[in-house]
Amino acid sequence: MKKLKKKDIKVPLTVPEYAKKEYIENYLELTKGTGNLMIFAGDQKIEHMNDDFFGEGIAKDDADPEHLFRIAEGGKICAFATQLGLIARYGMDYDVPYIVKINSKTHLVKTRDPISRALVDMEDVISLKERGVNILGVGYTIYPGSEYEHIMFREASKIILEAHKHGLIAILWSYPRGKNVKNEFDPHIIAGAAGIACCLGADFVKVNYPGDPESFKEAVLAAGRTGVLCAGGKSKDPKEFLKDIWEQINISGARGNATGRNIHQKPLEKAIRMCNAIYAITIEGKSLEEALKIYYG
Amino acid sequence: MKKLKKKDIKVPLTVPEYAKKEYIENYLELTKGTGNLMIFAGDQKIEHMNDDFFGEGIAKDDADPEHLFRIAEGGKICAFATQLGLIARYGMDYDVPYIVKINSKTHLVKTRDPISRALVDMEDVISLKERGVNILGVGYTIYPGSEYEHIMFREASKIILEAHKHGLIAILWSYPRGKNVKNEFDPHIIAGAAGIACCLGADFVKVNYPGDPESFKEAVLAAGRTGVLCAGGKSKDPKEFLKDIWEQINISGARGNATGRNIHQKPLEKAIRMCNAIYAITIEGKSLEEALKIYYG
Amino acid sequence: MKKLKKKDIKVPLTVPEYAKKEYIENYLELTKGTGNLMIFAGDQKIEHMNDDFFGEGIAKDDADPEHLFRIAEGGKICAFATQLGLIARYGMDYDVPYIVKINSKTHLVKTRDPISRALVDMEDVISLKERGVNILGVGYTIYPGSEYEHIMFREASKIILEAHKHGLIAILWSYPRGKNVKNEFDPHIIAGAAGIACCLGADFVKVNYPGDPESFKEAVLAAGRTGVLCAGGKSKDPKEFLKDIWEQINISGARGNATGRNIHQKPLEKAIRMCNAIYAITIEGKSLEEALKIYYG
Amino acid sequence: MKKLKKKDIKVPLTVPEYAKKEYIENYLELTKGTGNLMIFAGDQKIEHMNDDFFGEGIAKDDADPEHLFRIAEGGKICAFATQLGLIARYGMDYDVPYIVKINSKTHLVKTRDPISRALVDMEDVISLKERGVNILGVGYTIYPGSEYEHIMFREASKIILEAHKHGLIAILWSYPRGKNVKNEFDPHIIAGAAGIACCLGADFVKVNYPGDPESFKEAVLAAGRTGVLCAGGKSKDPKEFLKDIWEQINISGARGNATGRNIHQKPLEKAIRMCNAIYAITIEGKSLEEALKIYYG
Amino acid sequence: MKKLKKKDIKVPLTVPEYAKKEYIENYLELTKGTGNLMIFAGDQKIEHMNDDFFGEGIAKDDADPEHLFRIAEGGKICAFATQLGLIARYGMDYDVPYIVKINSKTHLVKTRDPISRALVDMEDVISLKERGVNILGVGYTIYPGSEYEHIMFREASKIILEAHKHGLIAILWSYPRGKNVKNEFDPHIIAGAAGIACCLGADFVKVNYPGDPESFKEAVLAAGRTGVLCAGGKSKDPKEFLKDIWEQINISGARGNATGRNIHQKPLEKAIRMCNAIYAITIEGKSLEEALKIYYG
Repeated sequence: MKKLKKKDIKVPLTVPEYAKKEYIENYLELTKGTGNLMIFAGDQKIEHMNDDFFGEGIAKDDADPEHLFRIAEGGKICAFATQLGLIARYGMDYDVPYIVKINSKTHLVKTRDPISRALVDMEDVISLKERGVNILGVGYTIYPGSEYEHIMFREASKIILEAHKHGLIAILWSYPRGKNVKNEFDPHIIAGAAGIACCLGADFVKVNYPGDPESFKEAVLAAGRTGVLCAGGKSKDPKEFLKDIWEQINISGARGNATGRNIHQKPLEKAIRMCNAIYAITIEGKSLEEALKIYYG
Repeated sequence: MKKLKKKDIKVPLTVPEYAKKEYIENYLELTKGTGNLMIFAGDQKIEHMNDDFFGEGIAKDDADPEHLFRIAEGGKICAFATQLGLIARYGMDYDVPYIVKINSKTHLVKTRDPISRALVDMEDVISLKERGVNILGVGYTIYPGSEYEHIMFREASKIILEAHKHGLIAILWSYPRGKNVKNEFDPHIIAGAAGIACCLGADFVKVNYPGDPESFKEAVLAAGRTGVLCAGGKSKDPKEFLKDIWEQINISGARGNATGRNIHQKPLEKAIRMCNAIYAITIEGKSLEEALKIYYG
Repeated sequence: MKKLKKKDIKVPLTVPEYAKKEYIENYLELTKGTGNLMIFAGDQKIEHMNDDFFGEGIAKDDADPEHLFRIAEGGKICAFATQLGLIARYGMDYDVPYIVKINSKTHLVKTRDPISRALVDMEDVISLKERGVNILGVGYTIYPGSEYEHIMFREASKIILEAHKHGLIAILWSYPRGKNVKNEFDPHIIAGAAGIACCLGADFVKVNYPGDPESFKEAVLAAGRTGVLCAGGKSKDPKEFLKDIWEQINISGARGNATGRNIHQKPLEKAIRMCNAIYAITIEGKSLEEALKIYYG
Repeated sequence: MKKLKKKDIKVPLTVPEYAKKEYIENYLELTKGTGNLMIFAGDQKIEHMNDDFFGEGIAKDDADPEHLFRIAEGGKICAFATQLGLIARYGMDYDVPYIVKINSKTHLVKTRDPISRALVDMEDVISLKERGVNILGVGYTIYPGSEYEHIMFREASKIILEAHKHGLIAILWSYPRGKNVKNEFDPHIIAGAAGIACCLGADFVKVNYPGDPESFKEAVLAAGRTGVLCAGGKSKDPKEFLKDIWEQINISGARGNATGRNIHQKPLEKAIRMCNAIYAITIEGKSLEEALKIYYG
Repeated sequence: MKKLKKKDIKVPLTVPEYAKKEYIENYLELTKGTGNLMIFAGDQKIEHMNDDFFGEGIAKDDADPEHLFRIAEGGKICAFATQLGLIARYGMDYDVPYIVKINSKTHLVKTRDPISRALVDMEDVISLKERGVNILGVGYTIYPGSEYEHIMFREASKIILEAHKHGLIAILWSYPRGKNVKNEFDPHIIAGAAGIACCLGADFVKVNYPGDPESFKEAVLAAGRTGVLCAGGKSKDPKEFLKDIWEQINISGARGNATGRNIHQKPLEKAIRMCNAIYAITIEGKSLEEALKIYYG
């Protein structure tokens, strides 16, 4: 990928003058100077409880949350996204760049529309950063179409504003969901979800991938200057998975991805190689073949 | 239109002494010295997600949010109304007067009455203004008749008070909606919606147009000293659309309009010409024929 | 009516020492030195939207909110009760004593029990007063029996406390309503509503009139030292209306009234004469015949 | 009753050092040095609206709230418990020790589980006390088993903590109620309600009387160091009523009572004699016969 | 059990520098220098009302809350967990280390999903500690899967952060419950509940025991560096109960337990012996036979 220069970065106007330098530095560090972003996503211990970490087809390693930190330190990633509490328990032993995932809910609640609230405040994030944890940004999930979207839209908007005040990068997870959403993989709905993130001022937005790189272009366009990241979704064949990643970036114009299960459900070494393969496509501009070579060794 | 003099402006008593000068200046700048107001409305990326920006009959240009800023800078408008987050991402590159739309919701949620909450606080608006963005006022949507009207009425009231404390112009979008509202285009209901805005102290109120200039007079009367603006609604034939605009102002006594889809769903040049045509009627006192000439070139 | 002396006024203990002088002055000015109170009520543009201001049997004058201010200035009244936002738009042109109506809702919402929240805070009221608006007190509506009564009871209680801290007179509108209230004109229910206002510390309470002066005595007794005011209700025959007013005060022991539609739905001159007639009975101790002479001229 | 010495009083640890002296003084004054408590309860004008004050079998005197204050001043009581607003309107004319009842709701709302919120804050209580009103404590009602118990449990807990910070005595009214409570007079449920009050740190807890002194012992035990008070309930035969009072204290081990209707529904003189009779049993350790003599004169 | 050294303790990063010393001291004192934890749980007077304290099969002693304090002082325990209000009433007479249980609800409410809110704030806990009460940590219950989990997740997260700021140990009770949870004893669901606590940053998490030490390993793994404690549940045969305790620690890898009914429903002496037996297994590394000898004497 082409390297960005500091002056190429469009610092959003929600970043105050005194925080611009830090925002630019965080942006360049987070995106490895490319503007693209490869996130290792590990917030599922709340979101999906133990379903993603234990059971058939899941590596034994994954049963222990420390697996996530071992991957995050060992593999090539831009940042590891997880809850502040988890970072607080392992962060002293691992050298990892973080995105603090601010809100999380479980997948158990099916009797009402999704609602997910901030677990921590920006001052908690900043406190942790001041204790030496390498926090580069924050993440927050919104569920457009939920009966509680108004609560999450406001919280997301305020968190983005506060992140920018501290020079942090702000990323939204934007998933249309709830009884009013018929198909959350409809490219048009996904494009809408991407556009909302742009209107809320997010730097990046993680959305579902509709499955086809052409139809995904609508979302990339709708997000405007907000970079679109693809959610990795359920574990699948590495070849197919990396092909999707490559197409999202090189055909659809996505700016990166945020992958969880396709990485951490593998044993440590394989998980690290998967990180490196995704990173190769996303940040190093490698071809699919090169990436597959990295993964399969 | 006749030019207002500073002394003609009825500064509402919610504007403190120290903010009067700024209020008057903002009022004159926003209304181009006429007391009338032509808003280019672009908050639909949250309100209607991508439905208004991509699909049959919509210009390709409209898929990218930057289209809105290109129109706003290129066309004659009084202000461009959109969310703070979007302004923060494009405002450094465009010279545009803004109305910050404070709240927004999606049209997805149909299983409960509409509720829309503030995405940002007045201090966020002021911070952006202090960074050089030309913000002249704020907008907020209320849904009278919704089971949650009490939440929005209070929020609207407080936002108007705070806007006035900072010399900003306050505009309400007032749409009766929800399971208790049978016909939101009933002129009597629209008049009620306009009257509420006056009681909440708004400077302008944007309402639905009942479709007929005579019956719309009731709303103009009910709003008293609060200027009535017409929502543009869905895209329609330019001739018919401009005729409505002209009648609203010259027959009903409306003080302006706020148009979105009828502008931005067109390719850039046409969109700019539509702005100019609406502006000609609203601010320059031109005839329908003159406006049509401007649009059709 | 007998004139009160300052020392006759029972200043409630919620009025702090420093605010006593102002409370007494406001009380005497508001009640014209009599302890009785004639309010011109004009909060219906939110409460009933445009239903009270436009339509069959309603004077054309009433379509414009300025009609209310013309009446308030031209007629004999103790105070004009309306929303702060409306006062802010017309108050610079009219010399009127005001009760700021703190909360309001629309009559549209029928699918859930009534809830009405404060539109403004006491500091907003005080700011307006400091800009020279003659505000003598505040009003707030509670709906005993509503599923949300607890929210309004607390808000009412706190507003009364804050009003008294500023020497303002506090008036409750107390209307039992909602699916748990079978008959809101039952004299026993009305008496209960009056008693609640006393326990919340209100100076006056506006209640529905059960229609018969004897049965209304229960409410007057139940309210104790809180003065009972009668709501005017729908427009009716002036003779009948004034007879009710006279009986409420002279038979039931009510301390006044708050009338809206029976005043403002008339053309300006008639409306002013109706104010004067009500005032004659309520404040000047005139007979029904004298009042009718005032009205009919 | 045996007189307590200051050193016998177990000051709860929620009372800070600086407030201990005041707590002990309030405790001794409130319990007349005995640790027992006889409350005249008069919060029903909100709780039961006018049902308790007007109608068949109720003395005419009771229609006027001043009746309550005449009784409170004329009879022997430990404290009169009522809302702050009512105290504020009569307190300047009567010399009475008060418990400020912090929350109240009406009995009208039957379509949802009970919820009752604080009408005033502790600072409002303290302000009134500083103006010379003899306030010795505060009361708050919780409804265990209500779907809203969590809201009231927290509010109760915080009010107890704040009361203790000011050296005030804290009393809970604890009534299991709502669709999840089958029988609110079940002695086991009542004991549970008493135990909750102890865990929330209350000094006294008012509960329903199950009707039989033996089974009531469970509640007295469950409440531990929190003194149990019996609610008086509906008016009944004085002999039967006083017998219950005597048995609650001398058989069950209750520490007192809080009586409303059995006092105030009587004409003034009889009401005063009923106060004196209850007081004789509760505070003066008199026999049932002596108490009956006091009542019947 | 092996003794920990100060340097072995992984102080979470949510503990600020100034509080580290206190955190380590509290951690060592609470776990008796072992990292394991034996809690005597006594929050059931709110949670289960009087059901756990009075009735068939329950010792008479248990009817009085002081029984809990007698056990806590007389038996070997790491800490007694109960509500602040209860501690405030008995704490002056007993020398006991405490975990303040921050939230509690009753088991009565079955018509909606569980919700339990903080009864006190951290500042209240700290005030009590400063008055000399030996408080070593705080406890809070979350109900993953409840429709209100988002409210409790946030409250838990903030309480953990605040506890750590004061060097206190933070323990979550994590019980999946509500209409969306089919089987709260499913080991996979329990593992999920344990993992959530780790992501919220808790030091320990109390979960239900699935009944079998092998399947319970999943939870111990999922909790990572957060120590897993087993809930004691209903009273059962001491032998069976102690066997479970032993297996949880020595087979599953649990770090302790929190036992209520299996202790306090026994008469004082037996209850103390049960504490000592549990303590022997949990803290002193004794065998099941040794523990049984301690219990049976």
